[in-house]
Amino acid sequence: MSQRVRIGMIGGGQGAFIGGVHRIALRMDDAFELVAGCFGRDPKNTIATGEELGLDPARCYPTWEALIEGESRLPADQRIEAISIVTPNHVHHAPAKAAMEAGFHVICDKPLCISQEQADDLASTVEKSGMVFALTHNYSASPMVREARERIARGELGTIRKVYVEYLQGWLSDKLEESGQKQADWRTDPTRSGPVGALGDIGTHAHQLLEFVTGERVTSIYAILDTFVEGRALDDDDMILLKMANGATGTLCSSQVCFGKENGLKLRIFGTEGAIEWEQEHPNDLKVTGTDQSMTTIRTATAAAGEESASLTRTPAGHPEGYLEAFANIYRAFARAVRGQDQPLADPFPTIEDGVRGIQFIGAALLSSEENRWVDIPD
Amino acid sequence: MSQRVRIGMIGGGQGAFIGGVHRIALRMDDAFELVAGCFGRDPKNTIATGEELGLDPARCYPTWEALIEGESRLPADQRIEAISIVTPNHVHHAPAKAAMEAGFHVICDKPLCISQEQADDLASTVEKSGMVFALTHNYSASPMVREARERIARGELGTIRKVYVEYLQGWLSDKLEESGQKQADWRTDPTRSGPVGALGDIGTHAHQLLEFVTGERVTSIYAILDTFVEGRALDDDDMILLKMANGATGTLCSSQVCFGKENGLKLRIFGTEGAIEWEQEHPNDLKVTGTDQSMTTIRTATAAAGEESASLTRTPAGHPEGYLEAFANIYRAFARAVRGQDQPLADPFPTIEDGVRGIQFIGAALLSSEENRWVDIPD
Amino acid sequence: MSQRVRIGMIGGGQGAFIGGVHRIALRMDDAFELVAGCFGRDPKNTIATGEELGLDPARCYPTWEALIEGESRLPADQRIEAISIVTPNHVHHAPAKAAMEAGFHVICDKPLCISQEQADDLASTVEKSGMVFALTHNYSASPMVREARERIARGELGTIRKVYVEYLQGWLSDKLEESGQKQADWRTDPTRSGPVGALGDIGTHAHQLLEFVTGERVTSIYAILDTFVEGRALDDDDMILLKMANGATGTLCSSQVCFGKENGLKLRIFGTEGAIEWEQEHPNDLKVTGTDQSMTTIRTATAAAGEESASLTRTPAGHPEGYLEAFANIYRAFARAVRGQDQPLADPFPTIEDGVRGIQFIGAALLSSEENRWVDIPD
Amino acid sequence: MSQRVRIGMIGGGQGAFIGGVHRIALRMDDAFELVAGCFGRDPKNTIATGEELGLDPARCYPTWEALIEGESRLPADQRIEAISIVTPNHVHHAPAKAAMEAGFHVICDKPLCISQEQADDLASTVEKSGMVFALTHNYSASPMVREARERIARGELGTIRKVYVEYLQGWLSDKLEESGQKQADWRTDPTRSGPVGALGDIGTHAHQLLEFVTGERVTSIYAILDTFVEGRALDDDDMILLKMANGATGTLCSSQVCFGKENGLKLRIFGTEGAIEWEQEHPNDLKVTGTDQSMTTIRTATAAAGEESASLTRTPAGHPEGYLEAFANIYRAFARAVRGQDQPLADPFPTIEDGVRGIQFIGAALLSSEENRWVDIPD
Repeated sequence: MSQRVRIGMIGGGQGAFIGGVHRIALRMDDAFELVAGCFGRDPKNTIATGEELGLDPARCYPTWEALIEGESRLPADQRIEAISIVTPNHVHHAPAKAAMEAGFHVICDKPLCISQEQADDLASTVEKSGMVFALTHNYSASPMVREARERIARGELGTIRKVYVEYLQGWLSDKLEESGQKQADWRTDPTRSGPVGALGDIGTHAHQLLEFVTGERVTSIYAILDTFVEGRALDDDDMILLKMANGATGTLCSSQVCFGKENGLKLRIFGTEGAIEWEQEHPNDLKVTGTDQSMTTIRTATAAAGEESASLTRTPAGHPEGYLEAFANIYRAFARAVRGQDQPLADPFPTIEDGVRGIQFIGAALLSSEENRWVDIPD
Repeated sequence: MSQRVRIGMIGGGQGAFIGGVHRIALRMDDAFELVAGCFGRDPKNTIATGEELGLDPARCYPTWEALIEGESRLPADQRIEAISIVTPNHVHHAPAKAAMEAGFHVICDKPLCISQEQADDLASTVEKSGMVFALTHNYSASPMVREARERIARGELGTIRKVYVEYLQGWLSDKLEESGQKQADWRTDPTRSGPVGALGDIGTHAHQLLEFVTGERVTSIYAILDTFVEGRALDDDDMILLKMANGATGTLCSSQVCFGKENGLKLRIFGTEGAIEWEQEHPNDLKVTGTDQSMTTIRTATAAAGEESASLTRTPAGHPEGYLEAFANIYRAFARAVRGQDQPLADPFPTIEDGVRGIQFIGAALLSSEENRWVDIPD
Repeated sequence: MSQRVRIGMIGGGQGAFIGGVHRIALRMDDAFELVAGCFGRDPKNTIATGEELGLDPARCYPTWEALIEGESRLPADQRIEAISIVTPNHVHHAPAKAAMEAGFHVICDKPLCISQEQADDLASTVEKSGMVFALTHNYSASPMVREARERIARGELGTIRKVYVEYLQGWLSDKLEESGQKQADWRTDPTRSGPVGALGDIGTHAHQLLEFVTGERVTSIYAILDTFVEGRALDDDDMILLKMANGATGTLCSSQVCFGKENGLKLRIFGTEGAIEWEQEHPNDLKVTGTDQSMTTIRTATAAAGEESASLTRTPAGHPEGYLEAFANIYRAFARAVRGQDQPLADPFPTIEDGVRGIQFIGAALLSSEENRWVDIPD
Repeated sequence: MSQRVRIGMIGGGQGAFIGGVHRIALRMDDAFELVAGCFGRDPKNTIATGEELGLDPARCYPTWEALIEGESRLPADQRIEAISIVTPNHVHHAPAKAAMEAGFHVICDKPLCISQEQADDLASTVEKSGMVFALTHNYSASPMVREARERIARGELGTIRKVYVEYLQGWLSDKLEESGQKQADWRTDPTRSGPVGALGDIGTHAHQLLEFVTGERVTSIYAILDTFVEGRALDDDDMILLKMANGATGTLCSSQVCFGKENGLKLRIFGTEGAIEWEQEHPNDLKVTGTDQSMTTIRTATAAAGEESASLTRTPAGHPEGYLEAFANIYRAFARAVRGQDQPLADPFPTIEDGVRGIQFIGAALLSSEENRWVDIPD
């Protein structure tokens, strides 16, 4: 990549988690230069973070509005070209919209936003502005996830019948938010997380991954959103029965009170002629059941893996890549899009459409859980 | 065991599967002598099976009624003491009832029978007759299942919150019953299997195991019984959301159309202070999450395993016991009960109560699936 | 099997381990009737054991010599046809020899005996007497071991290049023999175990399995026999470099001081075009590397497993069989041989030849370790 | 880190593998700025690589000598502070020596060099120059490797008795070097790789890791260096028996002809009171056998993992880090050393001492293999 994309960041100050992840991801392939930021609501934190990152203090802005305004005033060859938004959910919509309207490409953390109205508005903004918009459903860029998708797309599993998807964590088994832990704090606060907790934080990942891998839409769900930890304002446990456009059925469970579970995102898909299984915690193993019913482990970067997954790796077989590398794959593809370069893969990163579908999914789950009935999701 | 229990068998002729399993199980610990049988509806098969088993032809009876009658007429020191019933589901109730009324102890394959009326009648017969009645929910006698139960009973997991139970097979992914395969044939036939297919065949195992291991009752369910293979008369796929007496919730999925799955019975239980996981296909590994969130594999017959599980093993650590040995554990405990001997364990085998609860579970699932609503199960 | 083989047992009294295993194995398929025994050097133990087993006290003999003599005097249709020898190593040769000379078939625990002279003498006795002689290298009868052998025999791995074999246990990490534990006691005593400890007890299993599975002979070894626990008279740890007839090389490690290891027999074989891996503790998983370098798990009794392994199973896929079932496979094949029936498999059980090779292997290892040099083993 | 370390690179032009890895590693934590390079012997490749990396063409030098000379002439606040050497083995010694003598810190790929003389000379250069010298035995910076080391250091395993170390790959099973594949080409060429092939490339990793984790030195070895692929000039398979300073013994096998193996570095260590097992391909799982003989999986970044490993992670539990992150850990620690900052860990990266020991190990193995005898390695 001949020239790095100049990028600014909103959110991700000292003490945050995902901001650091985004920064490693954008550095990994040398496709970006981070040159500006508003790393949070506290200008001191922004200044300190900027200093640590070697930014020009003049480009460490006290508010995200100032960032957009200030950068817009810089000469075209200096100002940022793109903005990375890594704030809590309630601060996705406004800066993303403003950024695109100001002519900046946007890469945004998930879920897209906190209401259907916001989602529709962003979709419309993307369309009107013509800017590139990427949503960091990072798991979809894991090589073996693409391998699974490629195999399903070419019919290796026959017709999909059953799907079992789960995203189980245990870190909110206790009332961690009371300890002041920053991640727990905002995720359990409706004013910042939006109307759902676990479902938005991790359930949407599971939903996006399921649709991405199978190429089929979830069209109807029956959801129980539950809260196990007393006094918590949002769901910390979700159980969802689902139907897909092609007639497949299954379950999607997301929970943050499964004691001891780390980051247990797991996908199992059964067709009429084969099956696949993938677990995020061991991302380089894709288990594929063939027509003779034996189970083969396809490993990242081996001869048995296809070209799609190969394009997402940096090292030879047996040199495990993981969470950060998948995240970086999203950033690398985003940079190519910003530069107008060819992408080696179709659907190189999750887009506004994934974001909108995630918000629709959340809305349907809320309605289902409240009214105790199946709710359709537009296809 | 000083003297073998004389036992007769109903069902299990040449071509059957589970009859052979029961015979290996009863032989394993030398606690029984198989001396009589009616191995099916075809007297020729019974004669041939009896000959293969070295039985006295005079004690190979053309009907199960003849078996009970014929054996009853023999002198007390010769006639059978117990009867093993290994027929399809619709031939459980009548011979079990008649056997107990004739003074024979009964060990019967699951599910108990095919209707609530039959179940209640058998419960009443057990009570009136005073005979020993065992139901071969064999997985509950696997050493590491007992280990799990022991740990939960002593509070190692704190309060149970979440349970995920599944029993996934793939052998009915195609319409195997059309090939004449005997196991598929009767299991998909409502006249022999009863009102449910997969749910009775494997779902009841999962339900029994869940209640056995947790010591908690499933009190309410929302079930979707589904049929994926066209033209099949019974469910081949079930998805159930459930609530337990103590407030725990979870999912129970049983399916016979999960391509490539062999005999995937799996139990995951999360409490407020720990978690356990057990898979039937690797029965000697119990995965236990401790308070520091690390996962320890407790292995059968090791120093780390408790006394309950130890009493169910025959070999030292690392010498894998499996399906047949667990089955034999049920038979061994049944023999002790017949002999009136002390049992090393409480609840040494599943009883009529497990059977009745299984039928209640089936009934509730049917109702839920038909009426699209949550249905309670009496505690 | 129309008529059970009448069998007697030498060794295996109360308190022994392997005797019980042999008895379960001979019962499993109903091919034997245990009717006589000398269960140890203590006649009281023999009487008590016989009583527990329901034997006629007249056929519970005070010495093995008496057993052979007493049974020989019985009418042909009553006396035993075969003898199972489950004593410590130093009491294999004499009773096996005497038994065969008296016209009894023999099934004997491993290692064959404690010296090359004894081994040669037994080989000669087998030949002269024409009796069936089986050696219970039980692991070779595990279905997935046969599957591995079948695949290698048909060239699936190309030319074998590298073999890594290990049999690691931890139960002798402490000086368990001082506690009076019976198994540790005789295995660490040169007068009963013979000139080697771990090497004879488990190293010979590994060696036999390697040759059995690959179809290639180990022709030269460099061995270090070591003792880690102070005061122990025999080796408790062995490291062996080896060369095979076809040019393959590898390692064979057997140890009983690998803390925490249960019964870690593991075989890895790499050829020019494929590879296999098998672990005894998870015996139903055979890992096969194919030409595209992906790794497929072949499971017992599945469609992907071949006919050889299928003939060694009793239950459908996913119903795990284990140590006892493999042991029973040896007994079942031995019964067929005694009855002169067809065997479904070539090389249905380990024979005197395996026994002799094991003793040669021990001899070569001792010589190598003492003289610090490579030692050839006759092919 | 307030200011990035200005670094230059020798080797790693387009087509190379490890150069790209080093560049990702140095970027990951934003601690370096790559500003100069001589990326290979072909100046055109260097220019092209430099352009791709966005370097000033004036600092893309035609030879490594020119790089050192050219940078030395720049003002102190512009010239590089450190040099990364990622060339084939035969071009380690000279540039490393020259770089340190010119006042540049050095981070160098392994093995250190190709002869004992070179190794000693470099050790002396490090001492005289006072420069920081790091060797990228990257696996030693994997969090769970540090966890293993920490546990062993505090005595959790008791006294180490047995070690089994292996590094098995399959990529050189065929004569890949004939295809022109760059990695295979130089690694099998004695003029570039030095006197050994697989042993230098991967065996030294295994050796370094063993000593690093146990804190014990390998003091004596018996080695067989072998070549399986016809016409190959260097070893592609090594088997080594070893003794350690404290009396432990074990095996170390490195091979590049184990068909299908990817990058199979595995470490198993057994003590008198515990054991550990670690596999590079699943780097976030450390298997620890405790005193009750159960096996616990300690996972990166969980509560059960200690502080040492925690300091080497960037993401929470369940977000797998891998090969590149471990590599980056070396670079991050190197940057701290260059800056004279405190290190959170003792022994933060492998040093010249590890390099010298690796070369001694290679020398001893060569001698042992040639003379067919045990060879001591100075402690």
